[in-house]
Amino acid sequence: MSEMIKVAVDAMGGDHAPLEVVKGAVEAIKTREDIKVFLVGQEELVKKELEQYTYKPEQIEVVDAKEVIETAEPPVNAIRKKKQSSIVLGMNMVKKNEADAFVSAGSSGAILVGGQVLVGRIKGVERPPLAPLIPTEKGVALLIDCGANVDARASHLVQFAKMGSIYMENVVGIKNPKVAILNIGAEEEKGNQLVKETFPLLKACEDINFIGSIEAREIPHGGADVIVTEAFAGNIVLKLYEGVADTLLTKVKEGLMSTLRSKIGALLIKPALKQTLKAFDASQYGGAPLLGLKGLVVKTHGSAKANDIKNSIIQCVTFREQEINSKIKEHICTETEE
Amino acid sequence: MSEMIKVAVDAMGGDHAPLEVVKGAVEAIKTREDIKVFLVGQEELVKKELEQYTYKPEQIEVVDAKEVIETAEPPVNAIRKKKQSSIVLGMNMVKKNEADAFVSAGSSGAILVGGQVLVGRIKGVERPPLAPLIPTEKGVALLIDCGANVDARASHLVQFAKMGSIYMENVVGIKNPKVAILNIGAEEEKGNQLVKETFPLLKACEDINFIGSIEAREIPHGGADVIVTEAFAGNIVLKLYEGVADTLLTKVKEGLMSTLRSKIGALLIKPALKQTLKAFDASQYGGAPLLGLKGLVVKTHGSAKANDIKNSIIQCVTFREQEINSKIKEHICTETEE
Repeated sequence: MSEMIKVAVDAMGGDHAPLEVVKGAVEAIKTREDIKVFLVGQEELVKKELEQYTYKPEQIEVVDAKEVIETAEPPVNAIRKKKQSSIVLGMNMVKKNEADAFVSAGSSGAILVGGQVLVGRIKGVERPPLAPLIPTEKGVALLIDCGANVDARASHLVQFAKMGSIYMENVVGIKNPKVAILNIGAEEEKGNQLVKETFPLLKACEDINFIGSIEAREIPHGGADVIVTEAFAGNIVLKLYEGVADTLLTKVKEGLMSTLRSKIGALLIKPALKQTLKAFDASQYGGAPLLGLKGLVVKTHGSAKANDIKNSIIQCVTFREQEINSKIKEHICTETEE
Repeated sequence: MSEMIKVAVDAMGGDHAPLEVVKGAVEAIKTREDIKVFLVGQEELVKKELEQYTYKPEQIEVVDAKEVIETAEPPVNAIRKKKQSSIVLGMNMVKKNEADAFVSAGSSGAILVGGQVLVGRIKGVERPPLAPLIPTEKGVALLIDCGANVDARASHLVQFAKMGSIYMENVVGIKNPKVAILNIGAEEEKGNQLVKETFPLLKACEDINFIGSIEAREIPHGGADVIVTEAFAGNIVLKLYEGVADTLLTKVKEGLMSTLRSKIGALLIKPALKQTLKAFDASQYGGAPLLGLKGLVVKTHGSAKANDIKNSIIQCVTFREQEINSKIKEHICTETEE
């Protein structure tokens, strides 16, 4: 058997932990024999959940973590003080090479801070960006950065573009991905100061397929594969996506339930509608990777279910197999190594 | 008869000009006898369109404008050189007090530049923001600023908050509107440099009902009535709103048309669905005002139809009747008059 790919998973993170996390881990290891999952969390709770399943014992190991970092805790403090938390222990496993990757549906802040402080950056990477996949009409696009670095500089954005491009090509499988910078107009002279500074740098960048600016309107239409932005705007895109979709589907449902006639119609359209809307869901691709670290850290959303956890684990496997970090080192370090 | 409220309308602006513009103008004057519309555009074309309608001749006057500013033209140049364009002539009418307001579905850039250069700012207003209304579950929210001032400063945002609040209260009719700053987290310490600087200023501002930060996810749910932001983020919100809604409704339609069963269902749900989705449409409130100018300038979207033009004209009437500019002067100038 080939070498195992080891993924540490935060068994205590997210709204449905440990139940859905444990379920997702079991589902993930059943897809391949060479995955080993470390379930990091309160041992007793996690083991009790595990009892329900049959699986190969060499593929799952429980790592006891007595503490839990809550979502509302100030992240810097939490990482510093809760040494026995699932997030700190899981990240330390990545740091010590005991795991290749860490997956968590827990506190975003703690994951971002922990990634930087505990796992550490690849030499040459200035800022590690958080890069979720968002659904588009054509599939998915990578939104990079989305929460890690507000007030980023142009040089950071160039690194985001390179890392995002490598990720989309090798993990998601989009050949020569189209890279665009999020902007408020299509023309080169449009934009704020940061975009104006970054645009020519991206244009001059030979190792990416830069297609210019993308307006927010074009993101859902699939106008680019990698959307480069600093975290403030990126976070707004991510959250508004959710908010508008949510509100609109609520309105559609209200419409369907408003008259007897429409209720009958609703029964008829339900299966077909479910099918098309399912295509507009990025969770099948796993969570958001925090790129540029010495190991992979993946943040899945707080409401993650078993399927999200499973896909995030599989994403870690692809990340490792495709040697993304070697590729990042190759493309980033040539320019910024001091 | 009371004094006429005079609105200049760009008969050449937008995808459906002059046809829909002329139609909208006629519909608007039929709602009230004290509205006078100046249709500014190529006289022959406009008069030919007008021939189709019966209306009181004292309520519509055609102002000949031999030139047209195209959407793609660099705005500063266009405003400087095309002195006989509908935008320049219409704005000059506002400047000379021959009209109270100007409505255009034409080039956003030219309207923003023309508003500043030709109409001019109210003394004390640092930057005039463009403030569209966006639909929410509860009605509408004012997004201010949305395209006029990228890289704005904290003092600008405070003025936006005040002007937006006055507009929502007096033109849209929301008593004591909830004002929030667009942010990437709900907590006061979150945000980029600009938000961190602006937050305490808004908190200290006595003449607005400041409720703190709003995350993009909460905008469609109607979490605030006035959403304060600089133009880069505001423009992203506006355009992504459109893009996500568009894509999602396309997906819903695809679902409805995908099987025979769903097609029958679609016929049954259509009237009810149309009804609920209509509520999620802000065009009934008119276009986006460019606030803080010595007169009102309203930008309606490029694809504006007669109904949008009509509502934009009525919006100008309310703006005038409610003496919004006196209120803006009162609240802005006390602090910033030099």
